[in-house]
Amino acid sequence: MTDYKTAEALHHFTEIDHCSRAQLEHLIDLTMEISSDPTRFENKRKGKMLINLFYEASTRTRVSFEVAAKRLGMHVINVTATGSSVEKGETLTDTFYTIQAMGPDCIAVRHPEEGNARKLATLAEPGIHVINAGDGIAAHPTQALLDAVTLLQHVDSFEQLKLVMAGDIRHSRVARSVITLLKMLDVGEIRLAGPPAFMPGDATTDGTRVFDNLDAAIEGANAVMMLRIQKERITGLDIPGAEDYHREWGLTARRLGLTEPGCHVLHPGPINRGVEISSEVADSPQSLIRNQVKNGLYARMALLLTLTRE
Amino acid sequence: MTDYKTAEALHHFTEIDHCSRAQLEHLIDLTMEISSDPTRFENKRKGKMLINLFYEASTRTRVSFEVAAKRLGMHVINVTATGSSVEKGETLTDTFYTIQAMGPDCIAVRHPEEGNARKLATLAEPGIHVINAGDGIAAHPTQALLDAVTLLQHVDSFEQLKLVMAGDIRHSRVARSVITLLKMLDVGEIRLAGPPAFMPGDATTDGTRVFDNLDAAIEGANAVMMLRIQKERITGLDIPGAEDYHREWGLTARRLGLTEPGCHVLHPGPINRGVEISSEVADSPQSLIRNQVKNGLYARMALLLTLTRE
Amino acid sequence: MTDYKTAEALHHFTEIDHCSRAQLEHLIDLTMEISSDPTRFENKRKGKMLINLFYEASTRTRVSFEVAAKRLGMHVINVTATGSSVEKGETLTDTFYTIQAMGPDCIAVRHPEEGNARKLATLAEPGIHVINAGDGIAAHPTQALLDAVTLLQHVDSFEQLKLVMAGDIRHSRVARSVITLLKMLDVGEIRLAGPPAFMPGDATTDGTRVFDNLDAAIEGANAVMMLRIQKERITGLDIPGAEDYHREWGLTARRLGLTEPGCHVLHPGPINRGVEISSEVADSPQSLIRNQVKNGLYARMALLLTLTRE
Repeated sequence: MTDYKTAEALHHFTEIDHCSRAQLEHLIDLTMEISSDPTRFENKRKGKMLINLFYEASTRTRVSFEVAAKRLGMHVINVTATGSSVEKGETLTDTFYTIQAMGPDCIAVRHPEEGNARKLATLAEPGIHVINAGDGIAAHPTQALLDAVTLLQHVDSFEQLKLVMAGDIRHSRVARSVITLLKMLDVGEIRLAGPPAFMPGDATTDGTRVFDNLDAAIEGANAVMMLRIQKERITGLDIPGAEDYHREWGLTARRLGLTEPGCHVLHPGPINRGVEISSEVADSPQSLIRNQVKNGLYARMALLLTLTRE
Repeated sequence: MTDYKTAEALHHFTEIDHCSRAQLEHLIDLTMEISSDPTRFENKRKGKMLINLFYEASTRTRVSFEVAAKRLGMHVINVTATGSSVEKGETLTDTFYTIQAMGPDCIAVRHPEEGNARKLATLAEPGIHVINAGDGIAAHPTQALLDAVTLLQHVDSFEQLKLVMAGDIRHSRVARSVITLLKMLDVGEIRLAGPPAFMPGDATTDGTRVFDNLDAAIEGANAVMMLRIQKERITGLDIPGAEDYHREWGLTARRLGLTEPGCHVLHPGPINRGVEISSEVADSPQSLIRNQVKNGLYARMALLLTLTRE
Repeated sequence: MTDYKTAEALHHFTEIDHCSRAQLEHLIDLTMEISSDPTRFENKRKGKMLINLFYEASTRTRVSFEVAAKRLGMHVINVTATGSSVEKGETLTDTFYTIQAMGPDCIAVRHPEEGNARKLATLAEPGIHVINAGDGIAAHPTQALLDAVTLLQHVDSFEQLKLVMAGDIRHSRVARSVITLLKMLDVGEIRLAGPPAFMPGDATTDGTRVFDNLDAAIEGANAVMMLRIQKERITGLDIPGAEDYHREWGLTARRLGLTEPGCHVLHPGPINRGVEISSEVADSPQSLIRNQVKNGLYARMALLLTLTRE
């Protein structure tokens, strides 16, 4: 097993680049260990407590944190913006202070505005660990962890990995966190592809190759990560609708044929069948989408274990 | 105790008639045993996990599954259509694959469309058990179990049972499952009563006696199960409103006087007082409505125990 | 530790004045003990069950009950009016009978109408304990407990306490319960301050001093409890808006200077910064707002322990 002591203690997990490479490698190694035998970690944090503080709808992330914590024997409390003090006009900060005063060990925060998880981490009392479960378009660092683990389980080396990320990169917190992590882990090549309106105008593209054509981007790739398209955003483009988007930017079986044989397909979900990905591809043996969900659970177990170690 | 091995293993529980008579009798026997001493079964499935995947509002069924699982020491995760990926357009199938990838032991599904629980069961990985917690107007098999148990606790024999089921049979998943189960258990006589618009036009009526008059139907019955009326459906009838419905089709104290003495009254709830049942009857000693709720808990404990036995 | 046997057994907790002074003092003493070492009480009620039956939005109260119960090892089931049988027209009483039939040990009820928790307590089976988690503008007795404990931790004696309660007393269930409890505990002086439209026209003011000017009320006080203003209620007053309210009735640093040095500031939350309280005061060392949240957890642990003792 990983030596838990090699990386300096992790107090919060709000941004990939707030972690050292040693901390990230520890989390990835521990996730791999858990994936090989999850039952060995059951009840390792009995009586500890996670509060999920979610200001946005979520199935997979909220449930993944809840299952991860319960497998570890932790108590879980779900707080959602609907049906809460938020409706009464309480500020995020005051809600956080209230939640924190209940004495949880970890608080996983999802919020529509960028930077809020990081801000709350600065307000946390010692012994309370803040996790970013997605903040606006900025970061979704546990998703990056699970994606790195899923890739590591299926490729020979990160140095030789040619990963294409395609779709709405501009509005994707998943893309930002994944790109940051893969760069830190010295991935061979990251290619970004999407309509110009979906390309980020910030440092996200640094060190990547940008394509305005998916066929060109995908040639010779050994992994493709498709990003979810929010249908209402397509109308802002020079593309009339979902069908046109699918023809120009969707991952189809024909396009998958342009990659290296055995190229892996990832998607953070929820998927839009027939928009950014065809059903044929989503359900093909090359698709790792369900592996991603499983690894998401293990990555969150690894994170909770690491944050709450004595 | 029932010999758990007499019936072939039960993998899913989505329709009454997908079970053998031996499997159903085992579930009923085990429910009876649990009802006589529920504490003996506490924590018998410690660390197992139930996910409630609910696409329709529910108090009693969701809470009943949650309490049943927690009494057995299981973890419970609630997922509702509101506040979930469903709002983002994910298909039921994809949500199911995501939920399943979290590694639960059981998934209880409630869905407004018929056949969905059965369909999801065909997609389940080995070791994951799908339970139908109500699908459209088709089936609600745990309700049938609890009703059979409640009747068995109060009548001498099913062979001599004359059961009246009255109200909106056409739109009732409860009615379909109860009728199917009681036929399999060789109940003496099933009488169906309701306005013509509420009579099912399918095989539900096979082997039953159909009445278009509640007074006639109820004469000599030793059990009456009233079905919930959704008030908006009355307007489709030749009946002006709830008061008229109550006069023609409601179970009143006067009508209850037409049955055998001591006739039992059941209702799956939630009840509409003054519509399909009068308060006097609902609160009378002949009413088994609260027994039904208790037996619902025990039936779900029996089901979870049976599905997850090693 | 308190001798659990000195006070007569507590069956329900719906109104402060339904308890004897001995019962209340026991709850306060036990809360104090828990606050000094909460871990000592972990899992003291393993396998018991709390159902939160909430008909109004709530973060702090629902979460506080949930955390309290889970710390004690209890199962917790949350039922909210949204997504429940309430939408199907079930009466509160029938929902309660259903919930009760699930066999919980405690049911915490929050409801927008006065008297409902008390009414449900009369319907409870032996061994099922009803807790009022807030009913309309009538009572919020666990809030009163936590406030009494917070004051006791910070003042020398209740006899010498001069407490100002300011704001919308008329519509505040917190105010009613706190005033009732503090009178029973022989607090030195209770002063009420607020616009005339916010003064209760009932016995709440008996034995208190009423002020129509906050500067006058606050002079020489050693504790001030500000009440939450619901912004929509201000429009009914002769006050144009939140800014004017703040100038006339808000607790500012200047006003706090009129009290005794070291005067304590309380607020049941959620706070409206810049309306009834300035941020400077809310975040000052004199503010006990976060202590109140912590004590809320301990008070609910004390209550659950007391109700479910054998």
